[in-house]
Amino acid sequence: MKYVETALLARMRIAGPAAGERVRSVRWGIGDDAALFVARSGYETILTCDWFLEGSHFLRDRHPADAVGWKCLARAISDVAAMGGEPRCFLLSLALPPSHAERWLDEFLLGLRRASRKFNCPLVGGDTTRRREILINVTVIGEVRAGRAVLRCGARPGDIVFVSGLLGEAELGLRLLRGKPRVHSDDPRLNKHLYPEPRMALGRWLSDRRIAAAMMDLSDGLSSDLPRLCAASGVGARIAEAQIPAVGVPRPRRTKKVNPMDLALHGGDDYELLFTVRPNKASRLPRSFQGIALTKIGEIARDRRLRLIRSNGREEALPARGWDPFRH
Amino acid sequence: MKYVETALLARMRIAGPAAGERVRSVRWGIGDDAALFVARSGYETILTCDWFLEGSHFLRDRHPADAVGWKCLARAISDVAAMGGEPRCFLLSLALPPSHAERWLDEFLLGLRRASRKFNCPLVGGDTTRRREILINVTVIGEVRAGRAVLRCGARPGDIVFVSGLLGEAELGLRLLRGKPRVHSDDPRLNKHLYPEPRMALGRWLSDRRIAAAMMDLSDGLSSDLPRLCAASGVGARIAEAQIPAVGVPRPRRTKKVNPMDLALHGGDDYELLFTVRPNKASRLPRSFQGIALTKIGEIARDRRLRLIRSNGREEALPARGWDPFRH
Repeated sequence: MKYVETALLARMRIAGPAAGERVRSVRWGIGDDAALFVARSGYETILTCDWFLEGSHFLRDRHPADAVGWKCLARAISDVAAMGGEPRCFLLSLALPPSHAERWLDEFLLGLRRASRKFNCPLVGGDTTRRREILINVTVIGEVRAGRAVLRCGARPGDIVFVSGLLGEAELGLRLLRGKPRVHSDDPRLNKHLYPEPRMALGRWLSDRRIAAAMMDLSDGLSSDLPRLCAASGVGARIAEAQIPAVGVPRPRRTKKVNPMDLALHGGDDYELLFTVRPNKASRLPRSFQGIALTKIGEIARDRRLRLIRSNGREEALPARGWDPFRH
Repeated sequence: MKYVETALLARMRIAGPAAGERVRSVRWGIGDDAALFVARSGYETILTCDWFLEGSHFLRDRHPADAVGWKCLARAISDVAAMGGEPRCFLLSLALPPSHAERWLDEFLLGLRRASRKFNCPLVGGDTTRRREILINVTVIGEVRAGRAVLRCGARPGDIVFVSGLLGEAELGLRLLRGKPRVHSDDPRLNKHLYPEPRMALGRWLSDRRIAAAMMDLSDGLSSDLPRLCAASGVGARIAEAQIPAVGVPRPRRTKKVNPMDLALHGGDDYELLFTVRPNKASRLPRSFQGIALTKIGEIARDRRLRLIRSNGREEALPARGWDPFRH
């Protein structure tokens, strides 16, 4: 990695380890060729990276800079949570127009720092360059006790399928943000879209107690993500519309386009956990964990089809209509 | 990380661990939320990431796709070499136009795989998305024996300053590639620009024998990189033009714009190593290592200035005129 603008670099340090804070496992890498990380004995290192690009993942004129900072890190940490691990540090690759290298950058870094402090995951290095558009890539390094990572491929026929939280909230927030009249970014209905919270404590609990057999985070929408978990496990699933914890939409706002069940099935960016549990362990699962609902939505099936039982009892194929950059 | 196009993913597997190959330290992460890496006991983990963006770092119509694949990985590995470490695996973030998701991608992946095999650094995960422009970000995970990483901050007054190889070759290659008449990409003069070789064995040797006191790779050009090493160490340096191993340029090609010493001082992308050695250890350094020249170019000074002794004996300030995206 290399840095070209000293001032830009100095600004970025605010998302690094706090002054005087001793970070056991990392050596601040900004200003050197690379960062150094000391892995904990008995743990495996989790590696994940995520694009967060203007126009594709956020809109420069609609998304507050501090939300961009928070979210680019939070969503990468969500991948670590979905393995049952904990984040340790991250690298930030940032490309910016010179017009955004001052005020916008400072606000972005404040949001990034808030997430970094909250999830105990300091910035340790990265790369910056100039670009017409704002481009972000975040690599998160996490750890999980050896052998305890919960993969997508662990589901078996008969497993119960669960999700955490409410589904469709982030998609509803996005629609409000893009719609008219313009909604202020302080509106609490935008919260989950702008400032998602990776389910770290839940993911760790499910892994530590060996409760989850397979797990992933819901980033593109249930109808696109559940098939990925099933494909990795070589199974199918049947889920029931009536059981899906869909976001509430006040009746006057409901339209053909803003339908709670469609938001819950196909809306992206919720960063809730989707996991399966062997039937004999399902009773060990509480109804909620630290205030987050845990809801049974269906079962894993032997045949590889994905089916949705509608509220009227009709069974149909579940179409993958979540976020797909090659389709949208 | 998440993947949206199964076909694209399947293609990318060619840069992963070879079929049947057991990779001790990594678990293939593509298709799951993240990859898992098992750190070696007694080693520290090196983390580095690098942008490689169309228009900024390569030109879609001039750089062959396989060179883009090779170079995006090789240059990130160079940061690991510059710490004295060895690469273990990498993550690839790739954004592509649909028009480039077939033939271009296949050629890109062949170059990437060649580098991956050569440097023993398999692809273990990443993120893909669609984009009008080709955007690449590579994260390399490496390892170095605990306490043996060679940082930029280790230089002391009196240290001898060395570089490996010839300087300015890559910049000359870039000028040939961009110039007219058009030079074919097979021209050996383009080799170092298109297919740089990180100095892994040299970096490791210098770290294992504790010969280098400070080290970095030359990515932006000597006149920009040497000040960074000096700033990190709180020192200055005096280098002698007559000692700098500059690329050869046949007389007919020399112009005010194509001057060997300017190429050597300010040309980027050489990925040679710049390192300092305590005076009492300098005699342990051979003149070349595995065919790569090791050349003394100057000394570290106590005062923080950077000075260049011209061939005519005049001493002047060394201007930082290497690659800087915020200036170019």
